[in-house]
Amino acid sequence: MKHKGILIVISGFSGAGKGTLVKQLMKTYNNYALSISMTTRSPRPGESDGVEYFFSTRENFEKKIAEDGLIEYAQYCGNYYGTPKSYVEQQLEAGKDVILEIEIQGALKVKEKLPETLLLFVTPPSAKVLRERLVGRGTETMEVIEQRMSRAVEESQGIEAYDYLVVNDDLQSCTEEIHQIVQSAKCASVRNVEFIDQIRNELEQLSKGDK
Amino acid sequence: MKHKGILIVISGFSGAGKGTLVKQLMKTYNNYALSISMTTRSPRPGESDGVEYFFSTRENFEKKIAEDGLIEYAQYCGNYYGTPKSYVEQQLEAGKDVILEIEIQGALKVKEKLPETLLLFVTPPSAKVLRERLVGRGTETMEVIEQRMSRAVEESQGIEAYDYLVVNDDLQSCTEEIHQIVQSAKCASVRNVEFIDQIRNELEQLSKGDK
Repeated sequence: MKHKGILIVISGFSGAGKGTLVKQLMKTYNNYALSISMTTRSPRPGESDGVEYFFSTRENFEKKIAEDGLIEYAQYCGNYYGTPKSYVEQQLEAGKDVILEIEIQGALKVKEKLPETLLLFVTPPSAKVLRERLVGRGTETMEVIEQRMSRAVEESQGIEAYDYLVVNDDLQSCTEEIHQIVQSAKCASVRNVEFIDQIRNELEQLSKGDK
Repeated sequence: MKHKGILIVISGFSGAGKGTLVKQLMKTYNNYALSISMTTRSPRPGESDGVEYFFSTRENFEKKIAEDGLIEYAQYCGNYYGTPKSYVEQQLEAGKDVILEIEIQGALKVKEKLPETLLLFVTPPSAKVLRERLVGRGTETMEVIEQRMSRAVEESQGIEAYDYLVVNDDLQSCTEEIHQIVQSAKCASVRNVEFIDQIRNELEQLSKGDK
């Protein structure tokens, strides 16, 4: 069976360690490509175009929307954020598994448009651990921690929409678990319609030949 | 996350190597238990009760049907074949992943009754390889090979009903692939409803505490 790449959405609570996981996946295996979002917000110090984001003008972004060049997009705090379609399609065709690290609203839009997308939700082992991680960073004020926890409550409402739930307890084993889920997904019947048709036709031909 | 065992149906073309795969799975990993079917047909030379089958009288089998003691059953060539429920439930409760090696009609009945069952279909890499394996055994007459090929054509009609398609090209890698699919299935959101509820409740409690 030859497999086209799979589109993978990774979401999860802020503090669940998504970013580190994605980096580890890219570093450990060579089948992944990371989709880079496009945004109209200004680059922050240290950010470069084509690394953290593709930075775009409002005009250019709206042109992309008009020509159906985005898989999903949303406005947030007055700025557009979206996933350019062409890069994702190219990588999938080349057999790469493409990772989108986006939030639940975006995830649901992608799933609606491309139902074979694999939705993964990353969670710490418990809410207590999540809170400890946020506090432990030492870089956030209590107000920010409060906001993040409220946000997590909201995000937790959508978990069932995800295909898989991955508990990030240990970076290495969680990375392997995600990889295993992606590999297994390639064996799903829905992703092997061509192979099934082919073996069916061959069987019919050979079976006729036997008679 | 604590996981209850998963019920796994393994079906596939005659000649695809299901039996060998199941033995290899049982030998390599310790999380599997094999369900033994019950039948009213007579034991063949070398078969023992509780190994290949539980051999049963017609009366006893029909009693089992009446008391809903079978997950599925069917009649074939005048004999009953079925899957006793109690053993499967016991093993699942104990956290074992229980394998049923049954055919498509049975598989569909199990899936209808227990929708979380994982249906795997084992296939050789191509129809040509299947035919070669059947011929290569050297133990079958051409008539039997013809019958098996016709049977395979029929069976191939139902493949889409299976969740996963596993190509048995190499015994060891196929065994690992099945194991990977089963492990990944444990992360499916539908199998972690309790954990999701729990983390949601905890988050709400902690988030209130922050205010």
